[in-house]
Amino acid sequence: MEQEVVGASPTSCTKTMNKKLSKPPIDLPGGFIDRKEKELVIRDFLIKQIKEVMTKYGFEFLETPSFEFTESLGKFLPDKDRPAEGVFSFEDGKKWLSLRYDLTAPLARYTAKNFDNLSRPFKRYQLGTVWRNEKPGPGRFREFLQFDADYVGTNNLLADSELCVLISEVLEKCGLSNDEFSIKISNRKLSKGLLEDLKIQDQSQQSITLRAIDKLDRVGIDGVKLLLGKGRKDKSGDFTDGAKLDEKQIDKIIEFLKSKGLDKLEKIKCENNLFKEGMSELKQMIKNFDLFKFKNFKIDPTVVRGLEYYTGPIFEAELTFKVQNEKGADIEFGSIGGGGRYDDLVKRFKNQDCPATGISVGLDRLLYALNQKGIFNFNQKSPILICVLDEKYMDYYFKILNLLRANNINSEIYSGSSGFKGQLKYADKRNCKYAIICGDDEVSKNLVTLKNLVLGSKASENIKTREDWTKSTDAQKTFALSDLLKEIKK
Amino acid sequence: MEQEVVGASPTSCTKTMNKKLSKPPIDLPGGFIDRKEKELVIRDFLIKQIKEVMTKYGFEFLETPSFEFTESLGKFLPDKDRPAEGVFSFEDGKKWLSLRYDLTAPLARYTAKNFDNLSRPFKRYQLGTVWRNEKPGPGRFREFLQFDADYVGTNNLLADSELCVLISEVLEKCGLSNDEFSIKISNRKLSKGLLEDLKIQDQSQQSITLRAIDKLDRVGIDGVKLLLGKGRKDKSGDFTDGAKLDEKQIDKIIEFLKSKGLDKLEKIKCENNLFKEGMSELKQMIKNFDLFKFKNFKIDPTVVRGLEYYTGPIFEAELTFKVQNEKGADIEFGSIGGGGRYDDLVKRFKNQDCPATGISVGLDRLLYALNQKGIFNFNQKSPILICVLDEKYMDYYFKILNLLRANNINSEIYSGSSGFKGQLKYADKRNCKYAIICGDDEVSKNLVTLKNLVLGSKASENIKTREDWTKSTDAQKTFALSDLLKEIKK
Repeated sequence: MEQEVVGASPTSCTKTMNKKLSKPPIDLPGGFIDRKEKELVIRDFLIKQIKEVMTKYGFEFLETPSFEFTESLGKFLPDKDRPAEGVFSFEDGKKWLSLRYDLTAPLARYTAKNFDNLSRPFKRYQLGTVWRNEKPGPGRFREFLQFDADYVGTNNLLADSELCVLISEVLEKCGLSNDEFSIKISNRKLSKGLLEDLKIQDQSQQSITLRAIDKLDRVGIDGVKLLLGKGRKDKSGDFTDGAKLDEKQIDKIIEFLKSKGLDKLEKIKCENNLFKEGMSELKQMIKNFDLFKFKNFKIDPTVVRGLEYYTGPIFEAELTFKVQNEKGADIEFGSIGGGGRYDDLVKRFKNQDCPATGISVGLDRLLYALNQKGIFNFNQKSPILICVLDEKYMDYYFKILNLLRANNINSEIYSGSSGFKGQLKYADKRNCKYAIICGDDEVSKNLVTLKNLVLGSKASENIKTREDWTKSTDAQKTFALSDLLKEIKK
Repeated sequence: MEQEVVGASPTSCTKTMNKKLSKPPIDLPGGFIDRKEKELVIRDFLIKQIKEVMTKYGFEFLETPSFEFTESLGKFLPDKDRPAEGVFSFEDGKKWLSLRYDLTAPLARYTAKNFDNLSRPFKRYQLGTVWRNEKPGPGRFREFLQFDADYVGTNNLLADSELCVLISEVLEKCGLSNDEFSIKISNRKLSKGLLEDLKIQDQSQQSITLRAIDKLDRVGIDGVKLLLGKGRKDKSGDFTDGAKLDEKQIDKIIEFLKSKGLDKLEKIKCENNLFKEGMSELKQMIKNFDLFKFKNFKIDPTVVRGLEYYTGPIFEAELTFKVQNEKGADIEFGSIGGGGRYDDLVKRFKNQDCPATGISVGLDRLLYALNQKGIFNFNQKSPILICVLDEKYMDYYFKILNLLRANNINSEIYSGSSGFKGQLKYADKRNCKYAIICGDDEVSKNLVTLKNLVLGSKASENIKTREDWTKSTDAQKTFALSDLLKEIKK
């Protein structure tokens, strides 16, 4: 311990009287949390489902590292207000490194690096933590686990269509029924083409417009109108500048946003070529969905996706049930995942065309929503506790432990320093379902007492001695040691 | 793409003629690597084994976040030469955050934070990436995946002993036989007591001495002697200062280091109380091993473990077979994992005794070593490729795809833009074992042609048309579509 230098600040000499000041914090920085067994076991289940679906669909598993050169990642995060933030970056010699903020930018780098050796299309999936150096808030984390599946090196819309089918199968395998979610699809070429048609050519104005559309869920149609026009004051009084569009432009955009479904979209008058391309791609995707026998989708022009790099089809998986926060109030949950086509991302690294498309699912969010459906029966695998009534019987206890473990039965010998009552408290805290209790009687006659703690837990509060225990409940059974496995398997 | 600002350096205007200069790097920063499917699938297998063993031994699953307050982590890394380095740290408002360099320091913080709600002992395991901001080199990574199991809140040596048994079972479940590894054990109280007895009281001298012992594997007994004395010049000419001990002190330490096994250690004359405590703890652990029927351990005083926080029993899992580098040369592989007792770590946060002990296993290193044993039969789960011979038969191809996937058979329809030959090349690159080829004949008669690509791969180089293909090999079979599942299951 002699090398511990942190915690002793330069001024600590003046503070030696107040020991509390020199203790390091026990809390976590904002936006980071500890996760316990229940959540992790369910998460493992989700990951297993995802991996099985990915393999079935012919995707390869890849893992890129958490750090990349800052330059390689580029800047595509939606938060324009703080252009220097959003990522965690370090100076490393003469270069800057950043923690990845998504799994797509690293994939583009990986593709460029291994361009000649990859199959085309290259179908890969990845599971990994991503980091966002954002202002933490309730439910806003600075690290989260993400699952991504991408097609690199093809402009065939079968790829985009399959990703929608795939995310749908993942959600079903994770426990959602078909009517609990749907896949909303749109195309960046529609919004881009419409803006061209409306002569909104200034790049900053384009960006503000797209961001306004993206906020529809939160601010409603009227809010979007304000953001497309002069700007909007939110509840806290903060003012967001608008795109300063004229009334005609705004009306046309609102008409577009309200055109849910192919029929309505086709009625939009827009002679722009990009817009037409977008329409034709939408139709091709619908044809593909038909081949997949996939019906659980909706054409929805309000989908824009936050990230800057999308160029074609975009999609979002939306839950159709209400999600509550910890206080039981309904919350604006947003999408559970989504993605789209990003044909220019590999080109950043290499003068070579490499169209690509992909989806991401936020696993922590998915887990949060699934948990609310109450579909997981979390079965804690707590061990059988072998109590230590007397150190001199250690041989006997270990005989039992070695037998149980050799038969893959979760079990442990109490390894603290408490007496019998403390051991029962321990078993309670660990949610152990059974305890094995062997004293003079059992050891001398080669017997085992097996106690059902679930049945006996209510009576246990007044137990102080082994005798109280025996009297307190009928949820225990004594039998020959040789019958132990048989009894437990019951 | 309009928002991409990185990659355009302030001087990029002068470089517009040389496009290459403005491309971001495709390489990774030193010390970070991409990992491919084969490695990841084997790693998943190891993780599965570990989780099963941990559950059987009654450990709870926990995950702390990658970031902690820098102060909470403390500084216990062995690298004294660069005290400010070793961790990746960020300034976050008025506080500093760091990426964890191990899983033990975060566990101490977690324990202090949840002290009153945890069972005692608290047995937890964790799997997670840790980061070291060290100078990267061949085989030296700056992030690696670690597995940890710890007992917090008990000074019972059953805990320390069980951790050795547990790591041994993990290694066996991962595929090593009992004679391919052994667990070396020692006790920090022995070396500390010995130094006290030798009147080596200066803290810096103590640290240099322990570090010298830790280098035994790399520098040999003579090297250690030099490091305990005046210092040592390494092959590159770099000089490392020694502990400046006198000859008698050095001899005694060397005698200690050579005392492998309990018998020899008992012959060391050392009247120091701490040393005696260490001896008595060693004997207790041997008794415990006997209860566990565990024999695969060695008493070895050369084990010191790098981290500063250990206070009692220490242990290390050592491989007994040679490990080679990529060029086939034997390398000094070191231990595959280890740990020890750290009774004072929780006390940093809370004025409360909370003895603890734990082990860590480096999963990437374990995987590297296991791979060399050739014990893994990596079975790539490449999909069956359904070739697209004619777009007009898409319906038919999808009928096949939907059938296969509904039966959980890994499969895909070719989704690139190449012709038949390109599709076969694709199948080859993906290591597909089968392709399904349906043209006019098959579709009109409701047939399927299934091609074994492994058998046919050699002949395939000269294939340009479907006709060449049919002639080239007898490794294909045509049958009724209704027989497809039956044929594939063969």
